[in-house]
Amino acid sequence: MDRHPLTGREVHLVRYPRGEVRESDFRVVGVDIDDPGPGQVLVRNTWTSVDAAHRLRLREKAPPGYFAAFPLGRAMDGIATVGEVVASRADGFEAGDTVRHAAGWRDYALIEAGRPALGGIGTLMRVDTDAAAPEAYLGALGGSGLTAYVGLFDVAGLREGDVVWVSAAAGSVGSLVAQMAKLRGHRVIGSAGSDDKVSYLRNELGLDAAFNHRAGPVAELLRAAAPDGIDVYFDNVGGDHLEAAIGALRRGGRVALCGAISEYGASRPAPGPRNLFLAVANDLTLRGFRGSSHVDRAGEMTREIGAWMRDGRIRCRQTVVDGLEHAPDALARLLRGDTTGKTVVRIA
Amino acid sequence: MDRHPLTGREVHLVRYPRGEVRESDFRVVGVDIDDPGPGQVLVRNTWTSVDAAHRLRLREKAPPGYFAAFPLGRAMDGIATVGEVVASRADGFEAGDTVRHAAGWRDYALIEAGRPALGGIGTLMRVDTDAAAPEAYLGALGGSGLTAYVGLFDVAGLREGDVVWVSAAAGSVGSLVAQMAKLRGHRVIGSAGSDDKVSYLRNELGLDAAFNHRAGPVAELLRAAAPDGIDVYFDNVGGDHLEAAIGALRRGGRVALCGAISEYGASRPAPGPRNLFLAVANDLTLRGFRGSSHVDRAGEMTREIGAWMRDGRIRCRQTVVDGLEHAPDALARLLRGDTTGKTVVRIA
Repeated sequence: MDRHPLTGREVHLVRYPRGEVRESDFRVVGVDIDDPGPGQVLVRNTWTSVDAAHRLRLREKAPPGYFAAFPLGRAMDGIATVGEVVASRADGFEAGDTVRHAAGWRDYALIEAGRPALGGIGTLMRVDTDAAAPEAYLGALGGSGLTAYVGLFDVAGLREGDVVWVSAAAGSVGSLVAQMAKLRGHRVIGSAGSDDKVSYLRNELGLDAAFNHRAGPVAELLRAAAPDGIDVYFDNVGGDHLEAAIGALRRGGRVALCGAISEYGASRPAPGPRNLFLAVANDLTLRGFRGSSHVDRAGEMTREIGAWMRDGRIRCRQTVVDGLEHAPDALARLLRGDTTGKTVVRIA
Repeated sequence: MDRHPLTGREVHLVRYPRGEVRESDFRVVGVDIDDPGPGQVLVRNTWTSVDAAHRLRLREKAPPGYFAAFPLGRAMDGIATVGEVVASRADGFEAGDTVRHAAGWRDYALIEAGRPALGGIGTLMRVDTDAAAPEAYLGALGGSGLTAYVGLFDVAGLREGDVVWVSAAAGSVGSLVAQMAKLRGHRVIGSAGSDDKVSYLRNELGLDAAFNHRAGPVAELLRAAAPDGIDVYFDNVGGDHLEAAIGALRRGGRVALCGAISEYGASRPAPGPRNLFLAVANDLTLRGFRGSSHVDRAGEMTREIGAWMRDGRIRCRQTVVDGLEHAPDALARLLRGDTTGKTVVRIA
């Protein structure tokens, strides 16, 4: 407690962006940091997360059932973050512990131990920095890993012989899905939004085929990459990607609906796929999910993905942005498609 | 074989209708009927089926993966039909047997025994007329029954406490789904396209709530009927109905995508639901299916629905149209919403 009284910084949302997210929609605010009360833990944050899904909460109303919208003029609650415990008045946590919680985009956070956050995945917990770097607990061993793991194995129900298409395959979740499907011996097609990313998918992740979705109509690019069709589509994009997938899925095919980044900034709801009747014709299943609804699988996910990472069988590229004040710009870059792998902000 | 040489009648499609189906898109053609060859059975048809899904095959190309389009100027193959065996040169069938097959919209059919048709449900088989009227094998004990049964129990995965919405609930499939869900103790909401049908749903089928979808925006009518939301939606309609369901489904909700009658006559593909992201937010599953993909469940379905019918616990209203030549008009009426329950044509 020797460093008190402390002042900290928080990123506040100033206005709800329309269309593209801009740095000017946010500001950095200085705040006084209280000492922890009973049951509380004071954390100095070191890494915080930047996710496409944050865009959905930069609205007056988030989609019903989803995580709450970020409030204006207050700290943005519900963003996965890693830090070090400075002081603790909660059982099970002591100064020096590395922890994960959900009070991100600020440099100090006062957390109530045991209070559920982000559907469980953001509840304050210690993380093992011998097993992986702290920031891995925001990505491959955090929400991204859980989303990829349950999405591919449980939601899409990956089965022997499935041909798998992953969109946004150079992203945090997509790159894990694609690699796990390869590890299980599947033919995997990845798509992304730049030639650099496509080359990363082919040459570094070893996918069987990859295409730049900006190079033409997605349905045609997919047909060229998977002329005999696909069995599983892991959807991070929505829109034309989802429609192309429905057109390419073989009988009994499955879609894991994980996200729809192509639609997040739209000012009005985008129409859904025009070919949904093919789900009837071909016995297709479309299943939406959030990783955080499957926190019961987090232990198994961490063990399995952790082992693959240590064996070098899964690679986790990161885009690291330095400085809390640049978190909004990092999000804007991610939404423009200018980042690869997991995007994290190094706070200090 | 004493009635040979025979002449028969077939309904042929003359042109692919645009928009509404008209009688003038068809004509009745006289044909000579051959004697059965080895392995063949000659059937005098007595009842044939009229289904909304036939509209999908009155196109130059049916949806990929679906049953084939009806050819122009030839008998329309692949329509469930019941009749009596006139002559048989196939093991297991003899004159006088009542059988079901898939060579409908004609008065005599020469069938190859054992040849798979309509995904199995249309393969030539004897039916038990002691257990039910012959035409029941086109409806509650045929394709409609199988579709309703697997759709509700397997595809939607009906669970205790589920609130169920069924669209086109006065139709052949919908009325079975609604009644089976009631029999299992669920709260069931039905919708249909006329006040008469709504009164049928409330007063004869005993549903908990019912609405006429023409009375206002479907999402609002559904909200009034199910203010706390729904868990299962059995979709026969698509379009605004599906979008309303997605907006009303609670966490973990499920949609059985069975049909999309609102879209069948459209000249261009209708856009899908604009709120599909709610599937991600609320862990929803949309699963398309065809009853005929689940023929392995036909035995159990027939036993269970047959027992409910005999006990008077399931009612099966029919719309009976007399005369083979009126089958096209019966289909046009069904597509306009002018029929209730299973629509069948009595041939003789």
